[in-house]
Amino acid sequence: MRLAELSERSGVSTATIKYYLREGLLSPGRRVAATTADYDEGHLDRLRLVRTLIQVGQVSVAGAREVLRHIDDESLGRTMRMGAALWALPQVPEPDESDEAVVTARREVDRLLETLGWSTARELADLSPDHRSLVVAVASLLRLGYSWDAERMAPYARLMHEVAVRDLDYIDTRASDADMAEAAVASAVLFDPALKAMHRLAQQEESVRRYGLD
Amino acid sequence: MRLAELSERSGVSTATIKYYLREGLLSPGRRVAATTADYDEGHLDRLRLVRTLIQVGQVSVAGAREVLRHIDDESLGRTMRMGAALWALPQVPEPDESDEAVVTARREVDRLLETLGWSTARELADLSPDHRSLVVAVASLLRLGYSWDAERMAPYARLMHEVAVRDLDYIDTRASDADMAEAAVASAVLFDPALKAMHRLAQQEESVRRYGLD
Repeated sequence: MRLAELSERSGVSTATIKYYLREGLLSPGRRVAATTADYDEGHLDRLRLVRTLIQVGQVSVAGAREVLRHIDDESLGRTMRMGAALWALPQVPEPDESDEAVVTARREVDRLLETLGWSTARELADLSPDHRSLVVAVASLLRLGYSWDAERMAPYARLMHEVAVRDLDYIDTRASDADMAEAAVASAVLFDPALKAMHRLAQQEESVRRYGLD
Repeated sequence: MRLAELSERSGVSTATIKYYLREGLLSPGRRVAATTADYDEGHLDRLRLVRTLIQVGQVSVAGAREVLRHIDDESLGRTMRMGAALWALPQVPEPDESDEAVVTARREVDRLLETLGWSTARELADLSPDHRSLVVAVASLLRLGYSWDAERMAPYARLMHEVAVRDLDYIDTRASDADMAEAAVASAVLFDPALKAMHRLAQQEESVRRYGLD
């Protein structure tokens, strides 16, 4: 298809598409004349992902380029390809290791992962921003004087594992490793807010079942 | 306790405490002399919640005042008191009802809630920002050409209900309705990031179980 059709089908203006091409977020079309290029369904898919990242995920252009680089990295195995693409999304900054709450939080997170038998999460602790996010979240709780108890948290983590099994069942339907990494990223950006809203609606529903509405 | 002790025990500077007092985020201490007031454990608890809202939840001073107003509103029943306090946290803006994706999303969310038998969520649809958040999230998915299927989503919602049951079991241990609303707000601000991090760690763990690490 020509640029005009790519624009119409994607809902992205031609000016924006040209900008994405220039910034390397979209690979060049096949040149068919001096000033004309041809685009395919792959370009349409990629454009959709770029919009997801930039418009919904509020990722910068440089950040989006980094996510795409990992999705396209043939040298990575399936797990690390999904992982690296997800890890290139905006993350919480490194915690201050001299902070006592961070030290305690790190120990508590380790205790939780040990209870769960999640050995990979422990193995990748230094690499994974998700591990760091959990440490930072627990440190916030502790610093404000709230309690965190690995035993009380384990059932929550097990429920999130059931959620993750469904996620992977869905991602698994994709044809290639690149498509799987793409699905993992799109679902992190687009599906996380839906999951959070369902959580809140479920709390409300449960509250009414227990205490009534007024 | 005196202001100096309140500051030391809360880790909040006296200047900030004075600012919170002036802004009505903290009720005045009991006056014991012309320039001296006495503060109690209730002040310490409230200060902790204000820090949670402003420092972690990135809520504005006006927003925090609104949350506290609902927590302290004796006229509300237990469910609505928790609900109103949570709803005063920052929310997604109203969706554009003339947008076709929003209309479809609203229908799909209704279908999901019907499948689940969550009648309250449907009843409070016009009032609840959580319902709106779900509509906005689904509309984003649809607008980008991803699919949303109420039948496929129902098991996710049921898992989030299991999470909500645990949340309410915890909130239920609090002594008063005000304490319960406070716990609901603190856990929304502080625990949501931990839940999200556990979700991501679970995905990583599940991916390694299925595909190995490299």
